[in-house]
Amino acid sequence: MTVATKTRRSGRRRGTGPAIAQRPWGQPRNARPPVEILSRDAVEMIHRETLRVLKEVGLKVTSDRAMDVFEAAGARVDRDNQRVQMDEDLVEAQIALAPSRFMAMPRNPERSVIIGDGYLAFTPCGTPAYCSDLQRGRREGTLADSQDLIRLGHMLNTVHLFGSLQVEPNDVPPDLRPLEAYASFATLTDKSWRMFAATPRGVEDAVAIHALAAGTTPEALKGQTALFNHAMVNSPLILDGMQADGVIETARAGQASIITAFAMAGAMAPITMAGTLVQQNAEILATVVLAQLARPGAPVVYGAVATNVDMKSGSPMFGTPEHAQGLIASGQLAARYRLPYRPGGYTASNSVDAQAIYETQMSLWASMLGQGHLFFHALGWLEGGLTCSFEKMIVDAEMLQGFSAFLEPMEITSDSLAFDAIAEVGPGGHYFGTAHTLARYEDAFYAPMLSQSATYQAWEEQGSRTATERAGDIWRQLLADYHPPAMDPAIVEEIHAYKARRSAEILAGE
Amino acid sequence: MTVATKTRRSGRRRGTGPAIAQRPWGQPRNARPPVEILSRDAVEMIHRETLRVLKEVGLKVTSDRAMDVFEAAGARVDRDNQRVQMDEDLVEAQIALAPSRFMAMPRNPERSVIIGDGYLAFTPCGTPAYCSDLQRGRREGTLADSQDLIRLGHMLNTVHLFGSLQVEPNDVPPDLRPLEAYASFATLTDKSWRMFAATPRGVEDAVAIHALAAGTTPEALKGQTALFNHAMVNSPLILDGMQADGVIETARAGQASIITAFAMAGAMAPITMAGTLVQQNAEILATVVLAQLARPGAPVVYGAVATNVDMKSGSPMFGTPEHAQGLIASGQLAARYRLPYRPGGYTASNSVDAQAIYETQMSLWASMLGQGHLFFHALGWLEGGLTCSFEKMIVDAEMLQGFSAFLEPMEITSDSLAFDAIAEVGPGGHYFGTAHTLARYEDAFYAPMLSQSATYQAWEEQGSRTATERAGDIWRQLLADYHPPAMDPAIVEEIHAYKARRSAEILAGE
Repeated sequence: MTVATKTRRSGRRRGTGPAIAQRPWGQPRNARPPVEILSRDAVEMIHRETLRVLKEVGLKVTSDRAMDVFEAAGARVDRDNQRVQMDEDLVEAQIALAPSRFMAMPRNPERSVIIGDGYLAFTPCGTPAYCSDLQRGRREGTLADSQDLIRLGHMLNTVHLFGSLQVEPNDVPPDLRPLEAYASFATLTDKSWRMFAATPRGVEDAVAIHALAAGTTPEALKGQTALFNHAMVNSPLILDGMQADGVIETARAGQASIITAFAMAGAMAPITMAGTLVQQNAEILATVVLAQLARPGAPVVYGAVATNVDMKSGSPMFGTPEHAQGLIASGQLAARYRLPYRPGGYTASNSVDAQAIYETQMSLWASMLGQGHLFFHALGWLEGGLTCSFEKMIVDAEMLQGFSAFLEPMEITSDSLAFDAIAEVGPGGHYFGTAHTLARYEDAFYAPMLSQSATYQAWEEQGSRTATERAGDIWRQLLADYHPPAMDPAIVEEIHAYKARRSAEILAGE
Repeated sequence: MTVATKTRRSGRRRGTGPAIAQRPWGQPRNARPPVEILSRDAVEMIHRETLRVLKEVGLKVTSDRAMDVFEAAGARVDRDNQRVQMDEDLVEAQIALAPSRFMAMPRNPERSVIIGDGYLAFTPCGTPAYCSDLQRGRREGTLADSQDLIRLGHMLNTVHLFGSLQVEPNDVPPDLRPLEAYASFATLTDKSWRMFAATPRGVEDAVAIHALAAGTTPEALKGQTALFNHAMVNSPLILDGMQADGVIETARAGQASIITAFAMAGAMAPITMAGTLVQQNAEILATVVLAQLARPGAPVVYGAVATNVDMKSGSPMFGTPEHAQGLIASGQLAARYRLPYRPGGYTASNSVDAQAIYETQMSLWASMLGQGHLFFHALGWLEGGLTCSFEKMIVDAEMLQGFSAFLEPMEITSDSLAFDAIAEVGPGGHYFGTAHTLARYEDAFYAPMLSQSATYQAWEEQGSRTATERAGDIWRQLLADYHPPAMDPAIVEEIHAYKARRSAEILAGE
């Protein structure tokens, strides 16, 4: 069930320790029937209430361009209140235009990813302000940290594409961060990456830099998705102007928009998960309509957070039972509209402790059972998204590898059923030396990157190190082993020249 | 979906800290359709190969009593080799007699648990040699530790019954441990508990002590299951004499046997999960047949471990992708025979770290998706079963509470869909003060026992404590709050007198 593609030989390893064993590059595929926690009737009830919200309440859309697009398509637009309301027919007709799957092809075609159709794709966490590791502690991220995390994500086969920078480069002026991000992505990895479409010329610059890296043109890229925009709806029911314009520009550039409502039950969405699903669905569908109106057939992804807040403190919670239900139910809704689905891996914990892991597992299992396609924040996320942990990148990679292996089918053949081996070994024997075992010995089981099954004594002699501590060895080794994917130095020059020119323009206020 | 029963008021709290908030006592119920990773054809192939193993290979059964029972029913018994082989008809006819659900009623009927029929029941870990907590470290368990862990299990609403002692009382002579265990269970808790049937007079003593505690008689208990035996098959294909005799005596006493094959792929079972499922199925079904022959309709549970070993070291691994597949597939087989199913929560980790939690989550999710009924080792298990951790008791309880809440149905009603609240709040508002929120505010969401959503700053000010460290506060508070369930002091005396008399007999070699 894996789309295995041959990965390029990346030359001699530069690291000093033993190479880190990973599952090979490839997308796992979930071919199992969906797990459903909503009945079909319940899905239809949510659908109908959603249409009612879009028709009778509508969204506030703070963009003249977007209001123009909606109005031209027949939506009711109240310019004074920036309110857009739309009928069922408009919604249903436009949503039907969105593809149920698409491929994102980065500069290395072997790193292409399919979004939809049962394939899973994992992205590391998106743009926290802080990063942390056990040696250096928690700190504001810098460009150097951002770039190290891109290198680490490049090295990890569980990272299929970059849903964002993994930490904010706080030492770069905010206006220049998108350009620094693009130049970093374009040169440090050959996997697909994120545009910051809700910034001025965010799409244009991203596409231009990617075109340089990939040896193509912005015009050609209109026919081949390579990059992603992440559009956030401000719950409840506000589509911000920059976000709306970013969706339009992304669609027109032929690139993909992940459309996420950050609807959290009890605060910015109703206190019931059912009500939160209705509001979230309205927010996402309205924005999907906008993308389709901007360019019919534009690739979009249905993005759900679907969790609840702590009603005592108002702070977001993650990996809760309600969140797990919300993630599965959101997947049922995405499937109702045949849209690729973006769930994720989440935790509110402040360290890579037991809570961090059980919350992340709860959200990842629900994401998988909900037939998620594009898993956001699947590696490194901590503190409800405020921090990216280097060690958690590795712990999460191990868990994602485990999920990938879990999704492989169990081999049921006459040979694997092993009657002859059972008869040969008989009562009280053992299987270590049998022909059946020897023939399958080397790759019979998932080989962990991080997990240990050492005895307590051996573990103690090695320093009683937790999995989180051992994860530190692994990310350091992966960074030591990193070297950038091949790129003509002249192209690297061009990319940096583009960045320098545009940065100067931005600083000059052009 | 919870069997909520009113719990007895247990008088004034003796603890000093704030009471620990828990979900109320009750069994969660999984009413969702089963998740299947084996096709129906695959299940039938495993079934047929199982019958072939039972017919052509058979089991070694080192008990004359059990061989007598099998032979009387028409099985082929080779006394010289202690080999028992049986035909399809015998197997199918006897398995059909086993109940698909039963109730275990302990001395407090309000603590009764249903085994089967979609209900989940959780037991803490079974009889490791060591126990550990962060303050006192890892150490050989004592009777005092065993009793503290019973008290803790008694206090935790996620513990539905005791699958064993949670740590071996190493300071008690081995022959006397069953009696100490029975007296401890009978006096310290009013939940159901485990017999050690594979010890001389293990069933008789257990039933006698329970009868004293419950004010009933061994004869009456033949008609009402109260206690459990855990019968282990020695993979591959050996049913040890004491285990076999224990199954017979348990059945004849009207009590329940959980029948577990400890078949691990690559060592004591074939290296393929399919082959491991065949062997495990043969081992369990043969023992189920024995129980039914001993007493038709005897309650039994299909117990699976179904994991793999590390082929480099030979040591067991837990929570692996293969283990998750094995647990779900085993559940499909148990369902094929309409038998209640016993999976569990497992980890090979040596501390309550990230690995411990992701492995436990992997096995618990698979246990739940595989329609598990009786979850063994669901709290406290560490080091592949060598240690019970006081802190992990709490971390696991939190996870099990989360699963229980997750299994509750999502409310889909006109009110919960919240159209009116969405319309009232509108774009850019918030829901904190709405009537819809205020009406549901107090119990809208799962209230965690352990998880925190504090800001990093607040967490740091409180000492940057991990969830495992915070779990230490909780178990200490629960132990401080513990007091024994009501029991007439005369009965306590009788139980201790029984224990003393039987202990003296055992020491005298009677």
